[in-house]
Amino acid sequence: MLRKSAFKKLRIIGLLVLAFLFFQHAGAQESKQMVRLAKIIVDSTQLKAYSKALNEQMNAAIKLEPGVLTYYAVAEKSAPNQITILEIYADTTAYQSHIKTPHFLKYKDTVKNMVTSLELVDVTLIGVAKKPD
Amino acid sequence: MLRKSAFKKLRIIGLLVLAFLFFQHAGAQESKQMVRLAKIIVDSTQLKAYSKALNEQMNAAIKLEPGVLTYYAVAEKSAPNQITILEIYADTTAYQSHIKTPHFLKYKDTVKNMVTSLELVDVTLIGVAKKPD
Repeated sequence: MLRKSAFKKLRIIGLLVLAFLFFQHAGAQESKQMVRLAKIIVDSTQLKAYSKALNEQMNAAIKLEPGVLTYYAVAEKSAPNQITILEIYADTTAYQSHIKTPHFLKYKDTVKNMVTSLELVDVTLIGVAKKPD
Repeated sequence: MLRKSAFKKLRIIGLLVLAFLFFQHAGAQESKQMVRLAKIIVDSTQLKAYSKALNEQMNAAIKLEPGVLTYYAVAEKSAPNQITILEIYADTTAYQSHIKTPHFLKYKDTVKNMVTSLELVDVTLIGVAKKPD
């Protein structure tokens, strides 16, 4: 009887340890993510060409790079040349590898005379909620 | 032979009309969306409580309201009390209904002494690319 109860306790402790390790791992995965807001001002006369280059870059990166997770690009209604991009990478290594890819370098070259201001703001994701795809 | 070829032409025209209507509808759906950046400054001493209230609100809205589609909330690394939320609603009707829900009203009441500045910026989604869920 004593040995049975000791075994039960051990099993519970084991489960608790496993649960702890699982959540720690999940937390570490998330905190490793690199999240950023890119605030971009574009020459108004080149807005269409900029949007085309941006979308090409985003689609290629998502398709080709496992560590590029999410892009949302928005333009202000009252100032459509003021653009904010939410960017999520798996980690900083994924980002460093991203900026050396042909599609990113092509984007940078294409937009170099379109972008008049670029501010990169490092952020932390404090909440996400969305409908399933 | 003549009738057969005329029938073929009609079928092609029919398919083109259907494709046109389909893309027009898809475009209308997307342009109806209401997208916004909420730029919020929170009293630094109440950051944890604010984040809790915000996440409760976001999760409830996504779960309960068909027209609330997406929330991403980020805090600046260099100023964690400066928060930006990307919000996507199916349309303005969905948003108007959202701000009357019990979970939204509870959130507004909970955070009324936490939020020191609130700026709502209407935006247009100019691109999204992300890994499947």
